[in-house]
Amino acid sequence: MRTVSVLGATGSVGDSTFKVLEELPDTHRVVSMVAHSNDARMVELARRFRPELVGLVDRAAAGRAREALAPSGIEVIEGDDVAVEALRATSPDLVLAAITGAAGLASSLETVTRGASLLLANKEALVMAGNLITRAAAASGAAIVPVDSEHSAIFQAIHGEDARAVRRIFLTASGGPFVDREAGSFADVRPEDALRHPTWEMGRKITIDSATMMNKALEIVEARWLFDVPAEAIEVLVHRQSIVHSMVEFVDGSILAQLGTPSMTVPVRHALGYPERVETSSSYFDIEQFSALSFEPPDAVRFPALDLGHAVARTLGLSGTALNAANEVAVAAFLDGATRFDRISETAARVLDALEDVADPDLEQILAADAWAREEATRCLSR
Amino acid sequence: MRTVSVLGATGSVGDSTFKVLEELPDTHRVVSMVAHSNDARMVELARRFRPELVGLVDRAAAGRAREALAPSGIEVIEGDDVAVEALRATSPDLVLAAITGAAGLASSLETVTRGASLLLANKEALVMAGNLITRAAAASGAAIVPVDSEHSAIFQAIHGEDARAVRRIFLTASGGPFVDREAGSFADVRPEDALRHPTWEMGRKITIDSATMMNKALEIVEARWLFDVPAEAIEVLVHRQSIVHSMVEFVDGSILAQLGTPSMTVPVRHALGYPERVETSSSYFDIEQFSALSFEPPDAVRFPALDLGHAVARTLGLSGTALNAANEVAVAAFLDGATRFDRISETAARVLDALEDVADPDLEQILAADAWAREEATRCLSR
Repeated sequence: MRTVSVLGATGSVGDSTFKVLEELPDTHRVVSMVAHSNDARMVELARRFRPELVGLVDRAAAGRAREALAPSGIEVIEGDDVAVEALRATSPDLVLAAITGAAGLASSLETVTRGASLLLANKEALVMAGNLITRAAAASGAAIVPVDSEHSAIFQAIHGEDARAVRRIFLTASGGPFVDREAGSFADVRPEDALRHPTWEMGRKITIDSATMMNKALEIVEARWLFDVPAEAIEVLVHRQSIVHSMVEFVDGSILAQLGTPSMTVPVRHALGYPERVETSSSYFDIEQFSALSFEPPDAVRFPALDLGHAVARTLGLSGTALNAANEVAVAAFLDGATRFDRISETAARVLDALEDVADPDLEQILAADAWAREEATRCLSR
Repeated sequence: MRTVSVLGATGSVGDSTFKVLEELPDTHRVVSMVAHSNDARMVELARRFRPELVGLVDRAAAGRAREALAPSGIEVIEGDDVAVEALRATSPDLVLAAITGAAGLASSLETVTRGASLLLANKEALVMAGNLITRAAAASGAAIVPVDSEHSAIFQAIHGEDARAVRRIFLTASGGPFVDREAGSFADVRPEDALRHPTWEMGRKITIDSATMMNKALEIVEARWLFDVPAEAIEVLVHRQSIVHSMVEFVDGSILAQLGTPSMTVPVRHALGYPERVETSSSYFDIEQFSALSFEPPDAVRFPALDLGHAVARTLGLSGTALNAANEVAVAAFLDGATRFDRISETAARVLDALEDVADPDLEQILAADAWAREEATRCLSR
């Protein structure tokens, strides 16, 4: 029996995770689950999965959950550090890390430092602190298994191969809602346009990242760390159908791809089962959806975020932190109606330009850069 | 340095093999090469690759080669058993088995019995004697690495995975020249129509097999033996572009595919390098060719061979031998203008119906069934 902690339990990745965990009552036991403030959903999950401990960042929500769960004997903790505390209190074998944004960094680092397997749905952890996380994982022997569909695909394609045999990674991108939008018209994009994603259903922040293709920029950086390949070896391909989740070209010219109809449960199930494959009755081959697949190069003019991703994957240092923080601030401003769509990537570029970088930063420097980049982005946006 | 014997050196697979071997002067050394009767090409190859021994089935051709190669000190042997004799005389580590048809059986069996790696481009060996070859390989520890593009794709997708994790194999098929031909019009196909293949350049026999989809029928049987999966787990998908060379669905719902622009050098290079990947400057990713890919179910009415393939993969015994022999006879008759296109599969079906099958046959029974099926097919065709 493998013990599991689910961090970010009430979000969309959490939903997929619990769907898969319901298939695995004999092999996986949930020992802790953490979320921000959705106590109603958390109580429902806790009653179903009976963890030892539940954590909620929001203290009022935690109070309500504590009351509701009192008869069950499930402990409820609260406050900003619930994720790390939950890991320390319940020592899981596997940590499904799905807290979005910079908030997921500390618990991801704690996971690999403890030697638990990090099933990583939070890109920011690697984008910001890839140096610290990969080093801590190497030291403890912790596995890092990606949970987003692209990196899971790459991970599966590389599995069983020598890492030096990789020549190129083709990171596929749906292209988002604006892949065919006239290049000069991105200033006019409204939030409601950008929130309509053609193939994947996701949270609001990540849907905007998909529309700017900033998600691919962050994924380039993530791939740089996960697979230890140079920035130049990572190419983005627009693949509108989201069926081929990514591809790897080996030095002998062979290409391996992982594919299937889009569902978050596939990478989640892969990560929870790894290194085994856990059986499911679901199939993700649907001949209708496979009937016409296409690949095309992305347009760097429409999507300036992509060049930023490559630049960061080359530079590393604090640039990932700056890119991510500036993007978070700019996306929030865009969703609030406070800035234009095209200024999201522009703001990120300006913040990167203003960054005083440090090679191989420590956590303190990363968090300081994160705070600085947020202020700098706010300044840029207010001009 | 790994020593290599190339059986079927002067055919199209041989061409690809020597193209790849030219890239590998530091790791692979050719010790023997065998062909049927093309002494001119054989002499050219022998001068370039300097094997210890050359074999030609045709005695007149061998005589000419012996004379031409006399100054080089390369031994030339002749007669029906040159392939097996070459293996015994030169003890290669790797055997590239590309002798087409039933003629390649004895040397494939000799290869795995000796414990050498069988790089298998000859389907008939497994179709006829899959039981003997897989058993001998298991006993000696010999690897069997497929060299045709479909099985190489499946092999690469399964590599590093637990064989029990395979749920389905999707064997892709270009569909050949007649995928859209009106179902009722197959009686009118002329040899010159059938010899025009849309994507692959191959020999005449295999091009006709592609037009009838009998090649997929034989590949279903081959996959049954290579990957130890039941017949029901092997599905054929028409994929007109020949870019995705096959796919594997795992029990957790993930699908892995191997892909790239069609080239025989890719599976040859993979097999020669296995378990390593050998570096090449060639790339088989071409965005133009990847721009539109499609998959569709095959039509059992147009291509009755497919049902025969599944039936044989279920039955095993002598049925693979009968299917292959009947097909060889019928294809030869078709190319001679002696029978109709639609009678190729029909003849194979009749011979299978008339077969008195034996479970787990020995080599003598297989060769007897081969002879019987050829006579039976000839009888059917003369009616």
